[in-house]
Amino acid sequence: MTFRIISQDSTTAARTGVLNTTHGDIATPAFMPVGTQAAVKTLSPEQIKRTRIQIILGNAYHLKIRPGEDVIETAGGLHRFMNWDRPILTDSGGYQIFSLAQMTKISDRAASFQSHIDGARIMLTPEDAVELQRRLGTDIAMVLDHCVGYPSERGLVEDAMRRTLLWARRSLDARRGAEQMLFAITQGGVYPELREECTRQLVGMNFDGYAVGGLSVGEPKEKTAEVVALSAALLPPDKPRYLMGVGFPEDILNAVENGIDMFDCVLPTRNARNGEAFTSTGRLKIRNSEHKVSDEPLDEECDCYCCRNFSRSYLRHLFQAGEILGLTLLTEHNVRFYAKLTAGIRAAIAKGNFAGFKKGFLAKYNAS
Amino acid sequence: MTFRIISQDSTTAARTGVLNTTHGDIATPAFMPVGTQAAVKTLSPEQIKRTRIQIILGNAYHLKIRPGEDVIETAGGLHRFMNWDRPILTDSGGYQIFSLAQMTKISDRAASFQSHIDGARIMLTPEDAVELQRRLGTDIAMVLDHCVGYPSERGLVEDAMRRTLLWARRSLDARRGAEQMLFAITQGGVYPELREECTRQLVGMNFDGYAVGGLSVGEPKEKTAEVVALSAALLPPDKPRYLMGVGFPEDILNAVENGIDMFDCVLPTRNARNGEAFTSTGRLKIRNSEHKVSDEPLDEECDCYCCRNFSRSYLRHLFQAGEILGLTLLTEHNVRFYAKLTAGIRAAIAKGNFAGFKKGFLAKYNAS
Repeated sequence: MTFRIISQDSTTAARTGVLNTTHGDIATPAFMPVGTQAAVKTLSPEQIKRTRIQIILGNAYHLKIRPGEDVIETAGGLHRFMNWDRPILTDSGGYQIFSLAQMTKISDRAASFQSHIDGARIMLTPEDAVELQRRLGTDIAMVLDHCVGYPSERGLVEDAMRRTLLWARRSLDARRGAEQMLFAITQGGVYPELREECTRQLVGMNFDGYAVGGLSVGEPKEKTAEVVALSAALLPPDKPRYLMGVGFPEDILNAVENGIDMFDCVLPTRNARNGEAFTSTGRLKIRNSEHKVSDEPLDEECDCYCCRNFSRSYLRHLFQAGEILGLTLLTEHNVRFYAKLTAGIRAAIAKGNFAGFKKGFLAKYNAS
Repeated sequence: MTFRIISQDSTTAARTGVLNTTHGDIATPAFMPVGTQAAVKTLSPEQIKRTRIQIILGNAYHLKIRPGEDVIETAGGLHRFMNWDRPILTDSGGYQIFSLAQMTKISDRAASFQSHIDGARIMLTPEDAVELQRRLGTDIAMVLDHCVGYPSERGLVEDAMRRTLLWARRSLDARRGAEQMLFAITQGGVYPELREECTRQLVGMNFDGYAVGGLSVGEPKEKTAEVVALSAALLPPDKPRYLMGVGFPEDILNAVENGIDMFDCVLPTRNARNGEAFTSTGRLKIRNSEHKVSDEPLDEECDCYCCRNFSRSYLRHLFQAGEILGLTLLTEHNVRFYAKLTAGIRAAIAKGNFAGFKKGFLAKYNAS
């Protein structure tokens, strides 16, 4: 498993690459739709495939709680369990322990918390997180990290950063075999010197890839951008760089410009279920009465199953009437939108014209 | 548009036929999944098609309330609105006025009621129901009938039967053009002499087809069977016979045996959403813990997308985790089960062996 840079943009840090995994190659920059509980919400594997998404994200924390790693391992791993034969990255649970779990106690040895589903007490060491993801059999595993909110005092952020480094080291040591890639996660909040130290030390450990973590936890957008730029510049050019939990199309464009290669976010799927479609002319709320008799597709420029077959009028009706089909159709559209966005980004970088693509995309996207 | 009997079973009243409609031929006996609000719940048209279902049912009452016939007519009719290019039958709303509407007042002139969605006062004459369905542009329209519950006093049932006959006559007179078939609905509760009179009079009016209505409203199963047998025997052999709102596989087999040609029911779709699958070995509750690590498909004998790709273990997980994908997969399976059941029935009748098929099917279905 290797990562190879294919092309470098002429005026920005944007680059295209190919990441080889056990279940196939991923052209980067790539977007991963979120399949938390062994399903990209509302979509079947064949529906995901025809959006031309290359890799999906699963969540070790959720899968440990339900159905449990025993069930998935017995089924032959997460790929076979959910019938998805292409790459899967699993998040370790660090972020979920921070955002979802209850009664969390974190020591250097382990994170201990109560399941958000049934209150069961769970103890997770960094070694457990590596083993858990090995049993899930995914292509890319993430180390367990210690994530803190914003704002947090410097001392707390520094402590979490130090623990994240300690856990990263132990995760590497706990690793068995090389079939599954292991990515580190940088922490350090919005403190540049902590981010820098964390990133440098993790790079020294030589992971297969690096994620920028602990962002989108409440900090202002400028702070996020600052940390992304700083982190990307410190990460080795020959390893994939993954910005976790991002984001809106404009956020992705900005991060790519700084040299980020991978993204995941609930936005396309969650917003679809709330009746919001991403289109080439901006975001569209399908419940709006203006769509009541509209014969137009969601997006004139889209080639997805939803846009080729259904009018805004019909989609609005499905949402007004509470029909599940509406959620599925908008989700497939939004995931296709993100797949097309990243494909457009890759094509533009290959031509050395990322800046032109970004400008053109945003001009149309923000016009209305 | 014609109905032609193709084969007659050797020992029962079961028969196969072909019903020609504007949107294609329907081989009978046929089952119609319910697409009340311009969608067979959870399924896209392509998912419905691959179950090999030939015709779906829409509901004029629901569509009038939401999104309104104006919206659907503007879209070019119900077929174009929902992107379903095969036959559609619409129910008139008689049953919904009885079962869903509030503050209902029924006179010979019209049914007047409050919408179950927003309480809006709606007045519907039999002529309105014909015109409404003409605007929806479906292949088969049903006359507006007056449905009463069980038990009901004879006087009330007789009054509703008399009104149903009056409305049927006026529906025929209100009809414009012959592109859309118009089916009558028999009433008369569980009183044989009322059923007989209603059926004879409707047959005298020469409709394109006849439905047995007003059943499954609380009466015992033996009463239902009695009315079905009596009604089917009185209906003309050269017209399609449709038993409304039925039912379980065993009910369909019994009705086919009496010469019924068409069925609709919410069971395959509704039960799927409640986690119940119909299989060749009986009904299966996917949430049961026995399926926790089962690698088996829902039904070994099934060729649907769900059974070809997913294990009971995965499906159980989807239901436990509240994933919408589980509802969609079970729905597609159940609809395919009903499509296969009716295809099996047709093949058996063609061979003159309906009784053998029924016996074999039920032996396996009821064994566990």
